[in-house]
Amino acid sequence: MLSQIKSPIEKELEAHNVLLKEALSSSVPLIDSVVDYFLTSKGKMVRPILVLLSAKLAGNREINETAKLSAVALELLHNASLIHDDVVDEADSRRGMASVNNMWDNKVAVLMGDFFLSRCLIKSTETGSQEIQKELAQLASSLSQGEVIQLTNARSRSLDEESYFSVIRNKTASLFTTCMRVGAIASEATKEEVNLLGEFGDKLGIIFQIRDDIFDYFDDPKIGKPTGNDIREGKITLPLLYAINSDDSESSREMKSIIEKESYSKEEISTLISYAKDKGGIDYSYNIMSEIAADAIKILDNFKDSEAKESLSKLINYIIVRNK
Amino acid sequence: MLSQIKSPIEKELEAHNVLLKEALSSSVPLIDSVVDYFLTSKGKMVRPILVLLSAKLAGNREINETAKLSAVALELLHNASLIHDDVVDEADSRRGMASVNNMWDNKVAVLMGDFFLSRCLIKSTETGSQEIQKELAQLASSLSQGEVIQLTNARSRSLDEESYFSVIRNKTASLFTTCMRVGAIASEATKEEVNLLGEFGDKLGIIFQIRDDIFDYFDDPKIGKPTGNDIREGKITLPLLYAINSDDSESSREMKSIIEKESYSKEEISTLISYAKDKGGIDYSYNIMSEIAADAIKILDNFKDSEAKESLSKLINYIIVRNK
Repeated sequence: MLSQIKSPIEKELEAHNVLLKEALSSSVPLIDSVVDYFLTSKGKMVRPILVLLSAKLAGNREINETAKLSAVALELLHNASLIHDDVVDEADSRRGMASVNNMWDNKVAVLMGDFFLSRCLIKSTETGSQEIQKELAQLASSLSQGEVIQLTNARSRSLDEESYFSVIRNKTASLFTTCMRVGAIASEATKEEVNLLGEFGDKLGIIFQIRDDIFDYFDDPKIGKPTGNDIREGKITLPLLYAINSDDSESSREMKSIIEKESYSKEEISTLISYAKDKGGIDYSYNIMSEIAADAIKILDNFKDSEAKESLSKLINYIIVRNK
Repeated sequence: MLSQIKSPIEKELEAHNVLLKEALSSSVPLIDSVVDYFLTSKGKMVRPILVLLSAKLAGNREINETAKLSAVALELLHNASLIHDDVVDEADSRRGMASVNNMWDNKVAVLMGDFFLSRCLIKSTETGSQEIQKELAQLASSLSQGEVIQLTNARSRSLDEESYFSVIRNKTASLFTTCMRVGAIASEATKEEVNLLGEFGDKLGIIFQIRDDIFDYFDDPKIGKPTGNDIREGKITLPLLYAINSDDSESSREMKSIIEKESYSKEEISTLISYAKDKGGIDYSYNIMSEIAADAIKILDNFKDSEAKESLSKLINYIIVRNK
């Protein structure tokens, strides 16, 4: 399914991987080792796909250099953020491999995240577009604020649905929004088109993060992360939030008293997960995703039919049904 | 002495502090707490001083907005880098106060460094100057590479003087160079002037770091860092490097065998420090600084006399004789 989605931008995605590797070249042996290791597993490449599809949808001609450079810059910013997040979350694995902090250590991971970000800046300036550089700077600010809000929420064991959406807007949807906007800006789209495609990105990002959060409730070795990881860190995501907030029985109070603890046993984590499922938290989350997906499709109606539009439409569905 | 140096740019430095605070404003309570705490102690403000003096020296009129914004961007990049370095070095204190990682924790410090950097990007784009944005992107890349090389050198207990200079060039001199270049670019200096002032910054930065490294050999509560901190982390700086490399007696071999250990006792650290002093490592370092200072002064001869030139000249001396 993902390969169908990628088909209109296949050759640009291949070129993207070459550009990405070049953007990270250095003469420092430790940096080269980490980069080689990190690039072994590329992930789903959702962000460059978004930039390139948006550029294709909004433009009439070949995807230009500006769009290609922006896709690399955005992938680098995303990766920088992942490397630092894994330090903050004490995550052992990423994309089914040991995380940089696990394979090396926190110190190396902090510096490598900074290195990826510095190379994002270089690519960003290479676009020569003042507008794109501004989009990226605002995005970096939003991402780091999102991470801080998430840390605060986790530590205070926030059970507020609004705070949950504020975090996923800042840390995931902002990135998707910027990918779509920047692709459109690179193709010299009108302001209205840029805004519409940005809104599409926002909706897609929210769906993406809700789906990602649902993985935490199921045990699947393909994901590369064990069940209940988010809960272990105090991150109470939509299924459990809904379950607790929609239930005023004794069991809701019991769950809250578990959540308020400093740390959780394995049993407590499975109790919370089972509770979220029993109270319909997963179904609720899928319903929310469907509603947002319908809004996202409506946005695409503003654009005339094309291969790129078809791919973006399929992407919504892929993001919901994907199993990794 | 520092107040004399600052006098030609006094009002700009006051405005700088206001701009810096504004650049870091957010609506996230944890971010605000860390920012307020961090800004309590401003340090010596050497980097903004360099940007503004360079702008003043190279320009004929008032220091313009571009220079002021660049000074803020560079101070933010520097502070971002300090916050992350303190995580990597496990430093307890900074400017005589608890470091962010100590006052809060490593997680908060990683995210706050990212936040400072993101606000640097926003200020950088506000200059609207493509050239300045490129300078900053290259600088960020150099800083992060410098930190990785430093970590590698420390872990391998490198005793190579060339590696030492490579680290201080990348992590300190590059920042000083960029401050001077960007100030000059903001004042629309000629390419030759930009290069000359950049070279001046390079020399000043090397002197600054050598002087900074010498602090580690002396116990002074005003510095806010205890004696032998660098050595404890495996960072062998110029005085000890010189002592070991210029001595082929048995004691040099003894020192090398201490240095190769995984970690050092307090006694071992004082043995290494005393050895470096006894073998003339401090004198040697001062001689090197004097030589570089003479070259730096020669560069200033290319510019006609002015208050700003006088300040830059005094700054060389201040950097060598300062006691914090």
